[in-house]
Amino acid sequence: MHRVTRFFPILTWGRSYDRAAFTDDLIAAVIVTIMLIPQSLAYALLAGMPPEAGLYASIAPIILYAVFGTSRALAVGPVAVVSLMTAAALGEVAAQGTAGYAAAALTLAALSGAILLAMGLLRLGFLANFLSHPVISGFITASGILIAVGQLRHILGIEGGGDTLIEIGTRLVENLERTNIATLALGAAALGFLFWVRRGLKPALRRLGLGPRTADIATKAGPVVAVVATTLAVWGLGLDARGVAIVGQVPQSLPPLTLPDLSPPLIGQLFVPALLISVIGFVESISVAQTLAARRRERVRPDQELIGLGAANLGAAFTGGFPVTGGFSRSVVNFDAGARTPAAGAFTAVGLTVAALMLTPAIRYLPNATLAATIIVAVLGLVDLGVLRRAWAYSRADFAAVAATIAVTLLLGVEIGVSAGVAISVLLYLFKTSRPHIAEVGRIPGTEHFRNIHRHEVETTPAVVTLRIDESLYFANARFLEDHILDRVTRDPAVRHVILQFSAVNEVDLSALESLEAINDRLREMGVKLHLSEVKGPVMDRLERAHLLGELTGNVYLSQHAAAEDAASASPGPAPQSERTT
Amino acid sequence: MHRVTRFFPILTWGRSYDRAAFTDDLIAAVIVTIMLIPQSLAYALLAGMPPEAGLYASIAPIILYAVFGTSRALAVGPVAVVSLMTAAALGEVAAQGTAGYAAAALTLAALSGAILLAMGLLRLGFLANFLSHPVISGFITASGILIAVGQLRHILGIEGGGDTLIEIGTRLVENLERTNIATLALGAAALGFLFWVRRGLKPALRRLGLGPRTADIATKAGPVVAVVATTLAVWGLGLDARGVAIVGQVPQSLPPLTLPDLSPPLIGQLFVPALLISVIGFVESISVAQTLAARRRERVRPDQELIGLGAANLGAAFTGGFPVTGGFSRSVVNFDAGARTPAAGAFTAVGLTVAALMLTPAIRYLPNATLAATIIVAVLGLVDLGVLRRAWAYSRADFAAVAATIAVTLLLGVEIGVSAGVAISVLLYLFKTSRPHIAEVGRIPGTEHFRNIHRHEVETTPAVVTLRIDESLYFANARFLEDHILDRVTRDPAVRHVILQFSAVNEVDLSALESLEAINDRLREMGVKLHLSEVKGPVMDRLERAHLLGELTGNVYLSQHAAAEDAASASPGPAPQSERTT
Repeated sequence: MHRVTRFFPILTWGRSYDRAAFTDDLIAAVIVTIMLIPQSLAYALLAGMPPEAGLYASIAPIILYAVFGTSRALAVGPVAVVSLMTAAALGEVAAQGTAGYAAAALTLAALSGAILLAMGLLRLGFLANFLSHPVISGFITASGILIAVGQLRHILGIEGGGDTLIEIGTRLVENLERTNIATLALGAAALGFLFWVRRGLKPALRRLGLGPRTADIATKAGPVVAVVATTLAVWGLGLDARGVAIVGQVPQSLPPLTLPDLSPPLIGQLFVPALLISVIGFVESISVAQTLAARRRERVRPDQELIGLGAANLGAAFTGGFPVTGGFSRSVVNFDAGARTPAAGAFTAVGLTVAALMLTPAIRYLPNATLAATIIVAVLGLVDLGVLRRAWAYSRADFAAVAATIAVTLLLGVEIGVSAGVAISVLLYLFKTSRPHIAEVGRIPGTEHFRNIHRHEVETTPAVVTLRIDESLYFANARFLEDHILDRVTRDPAVRHVILQFSAVNEVDLSALESLEAINDRLREMGVKLHLSEVKGPVMDRLERAHLLGELTGNVYLSQHAAAEDAASASPGPAPQSERTT
Repeated sequence: MHRVTRFFPILTWGRSYDRAAFTDDLIAAVIVTIMLIPQSLAYALLAGMPPEAGLYASIAPIILYAVFGTSRALAVGPVAVVSLMTAAALGEVAAQGTAGYAAAALTLAALSGAILLAMGLLRLGFLANFLSHPVISGFITASGILIAVGQLRHILGIEGGGDTLIEIGTRLVENLERTNIATLALGAAALGFLFWVRRGLKPALRRLGLGPRTADIATKAGPVVAVVATTLAVWGLGLDARGVAIVGQVPQSLPPLTLPDLSPPLIGQLFVPALLISVIGFVESISVAQTLAARRRERVRPDQELIGLGAANLGAAFTGGFPVTGGFSRSVVNFDAGARTPAAGAFTAVGLTVAALMLTPAIRYLPNATLAATIIVAVLGLVDLGVLRRAWAYSRADFAAVAATIAVTLLLGVEIGVSAGVAISVLLYLFKTSRPHIAEVGRIPGTEHFRNIHRHEVETTPAVVTLRIDESLYFANARFLEDHILDRVTRDPAVRHVILQFSAVNEVDLSALESLEAINDRLREMGVKLHLSEVKGPVMDRLERAHLLGELTGNVYLSQHAAAEDAASASPGPAPQSERTT
């Protein structure tokens, strides 16, 4: 691929842009814009930002992603989990509603943009792989619960907040008696309506003869209906005077040009949160992008995606926004509405700009309870406690990773939760590979096949022990191998030959090499020869660079059969025995 | 093994103890005692402790290890690297020479003892495996350099110290002009003599007709000669009045009963250093123990070794000592001198007790320079920069781990050095396995064997792609697999079947399972079938608990040959082509 088009995917699709694509993109943009207005306001509320910041965070980032991103359908902007992480990070440095808070949001977006851009340029996209699927599922589920419980205060019209389930719950219970009835009535109505839209509207529309896609898209407009109805109710009934919290006056403005504060102490405080936000945001975004791309047999390039998301976050930092990423629901709507190129995103940006300029007076009486209701309904779709059951059924290690991630996230907050999840997955993996499966094998009579003596009826020779190692050999299991082999040999004084069958050994690192040398030395001291069989090409290439093969007391055989024949004939003793063990 | 004898190995060897074993053990004990007196004093100096603490640290620990340890020849006590780590840890909480420093040493030994004991009882000995051989070699080499350079100040008779090469070097250079000539003369003489003993004495003794073992043991007495000669020189010439630093008055006493300070703040400060000291001490000790045990076809049990070392450290904490572990040189001397049981250790303890009671007045005029010289000569034997060359020749990843460990230890100190080494090894391993080798294979004409299309002349069918994955599938490489397969298929619209040959896949975790499900879904959307072949038993057992096999668009085949035959006959298209690439 040409160097310039590699970094500017727009040059690829832009060249063949025509009127048909333009029409499709425009229709998709109108639909997405309508859906995004309430969503952007809601995620601004979740992130603790002023409502207009949600709109601003959806404009410049969408355009920048359209230039640098590789997915044709991904829609970037504020999303639930990243907004929650943003609130948690900013809460450490400033109080919500202060100028310092909004300023720190710009710094966080700038840092996140710089980190994503650096990861993309250094091709470090693979780092996101260390978030295992169980950890991501657990984290998203726990975040969804934290968000939903955290938004309940807006439905009740009370004070609250907090970073952990216990903090949020305690404050909810403490303030429960101060519940504002008018707010609760509006919030409950919005919540009920939105749940019905999600569960009941689509089948109803299908019965009315709408196609599945159209029905899907129409249900996404539910929040808009809730927004309009509750805004009119507050305005008409003067509910704001009865204590219903409303969005309030929102400036009518283009996204402002802002300069993030890059003072070293602030960067020091926000760097780790920005890193976690970047990685989580990237993982979420790339999954959406890959899912949509596969439906059209297209490909997204992960390292270029990092650059696209990095540019989008830098855009948010310089235009009064906060951290953004590719969102699932908006991207699916964009895709289903027929968006063909990233130009659809650019048109959406234009739509949102018009909204920021013209529509903001109309949302003055919009109650926060309605926004909270849209958030709750959206995030409950993320909560998937079934992952615990599926993980349990599949493997205990995966279950431990999910359960620990969920518990730590709920009880200690999002930042510790995701870090703990990564640490646990890595440790569990190392633990598993540190105790590899080592099968003692014997020959199936009359064949050249060797199988586990505990599973098959096989022939063995008392003086010859053959061990098949079902794992690559590296530092974490090198000593286990030493212990296993030396235990086996010291238990049985008849042993004169040990054959290690290397057919499943994909690597031998320096630690394992030194363990093999130690095993060779110690077996020599016991008068036992060490042989290797079925060593893979790349492993053999590497072993040949070391001293082991020269010092090996035995031989290296291409086939296990040849090794066993040779060892058995070299060792005087009783004839082969047939052996069977459970 | 019986439960009680499992935890008290003394009950096993104690029952068959006879006069012959007694004689052998007693001779070994006399030799080891003579060697240990200067060594214990020297390592006390290195740890920043008063000289008698070195003797105390060798008495109770030896006896406790004799009761609980499983190695018959291991000699525990202060050793070089652990003493350096002790000085680094204690330097953080108190100044050398203060009462607080010696008190903190007891806390450090108690914590280290508790950690080792807990690891042993919880059978966590495998955790030590995460220190890869390159990291250990690099760490020991860098520690040896730090120790040797750090001791130069005693040879020169100047002030100094520090935790990193730069700190130590800067202070050496600053104070160089204050060099004490008398001290330098003594120190240089001792250093020269000890180097000659190490290099030249053994061949000389062999020429005089001594056996290799006797010659070896005699050279170990070199430090005793240096100690006696330089002590006499200081005393006779009154060199202490000329500014030669001497050991000074040492109390004539049995090891005192001491109670370590276990206040939470002190524990908080010393916990991490104690953990690192425990792990490094254990790794050093177990290597020595296993090497010696193998020579007599005996076995040591790692988890019981942890208990033995834990008891030894608790013993040090309650008798005025500091952290101890099994030492290489003393254990080898013990073994070579003919020690047959841990009773030799107990006799050595008696010998050292006599020394603490009777000999301490004699060492009053012993110059610190002599002790520094014995340390320098001992630790230069640990320095092995050749490991850099060997690691480079073997693999770049191992080289990176060694080089980083050496550099970080020298420049940032022992604690950060060993932590960085572990982190780097784990990350490099994860990085390597995150990009597994995936070979596209084809059939060798006329056989049922499948080989890499880039290495062999093989037959392939355009509609069928077979990929052999040479690694277990887990979270770190799950996305790589997705990318690799989808890239391959989108590049080539002729593909209708993808066969994954699982012969080298030892595990599929939940993340990889979900990636396989995603691959299956996306290939289905592209109209491509996914098949699996040669899935191992334990992997198949696990896959059967999940939905994948039910939803798989293709089949699971026992042999790759059957899979290829079936896929080729199912897909209309041109006849098989013979293909050869590079």
